[in-house]
Amino acid sequence: MPTATGHTKAIRASRVNGSAVYDSKGDKIGHVEDIILDKTSNQILFAVVSFGGFLGIGEKYHSIPWSLLDYSKEEGGYVVALSKETLKAAPSYDMNDFTKGDGFTQIRDKSYDYYKVARTW
Amino acid sequence: MPTATGHTKAIRASRVNGSAVYDSKGDKIGHVEDIILDKTSNQILFAVVSFGGFLGIGEKYHSIPWSLLDYSKEEGGYVVALSKETLKAAPSYDMNDFTKGDGFTQIRDKSYDYYKVARTW
Repeated sequence: MPTATGHTKAIRASRVNGSAVYDSKGDKIGHVEDIILDKTSNQILFAVVSFGGFLGIGEKYHSIPWSLLDYSKEEGGYVVALSKETLKAAPSYDMNDFTKGDGFTQIRDKSYDYYKVARTW
Repeated sequence: MPTATGHTKAIRASRVNGSAVYDSKGDKIGHVEDIILDKTSNQILFAVVSFGGFLGIGEKYHSIPWSLLDYSKEEGGYVVALSKETLKAAPSYDMNDFTKGDGFTQIRDKSYDYYKVARTW
């Protein structure tokens, strides 16, 4: 049986969208709503995760660095190794904010800072 | 009116999928079927374009470097600045080939070579 690390590294964007997202305790906190791609740098800017309903935040979307989402075969979704509290307090946005002009640069930087993920590009 | 270069650089994966793809003459040659993402490097590996029907290739899919797809507001889709003949002769695969084990590395390298696109990562 393939292990977590043996899981393929190449993933179809359409398969990511809609996948469940779990916190470090294994509690479901939402789902991947979309992936934001950078046309110029060829990089994945971040995943857009909706916590709507689960955390009572409503329609706001969270930008989470792609590297923080670990696929779990057992959960059948993505695990983010952070507490519900940390995720709940994260910066959140309207969906349109992510693709409006150059607004994504601030959102990207703020999100990477908040989650303490170093960008390699 | 926004120009092509003024177009936002941040794009939702779900909006790319299904978009029409045109060759250098402006002829529609197919559509974007999916985007393949690299879990480890944070890079967009390539776009998967289906030419089915249009070029009579059937169910095969082409892996095209993301940087080759230029969004055109007039066309309402992506233009690849290559001839139909060049696109038709490009390497093509079954959808499963893209995410099976480490097969994507050969596919990626072969596609970047074929289209003469230098990878920056």
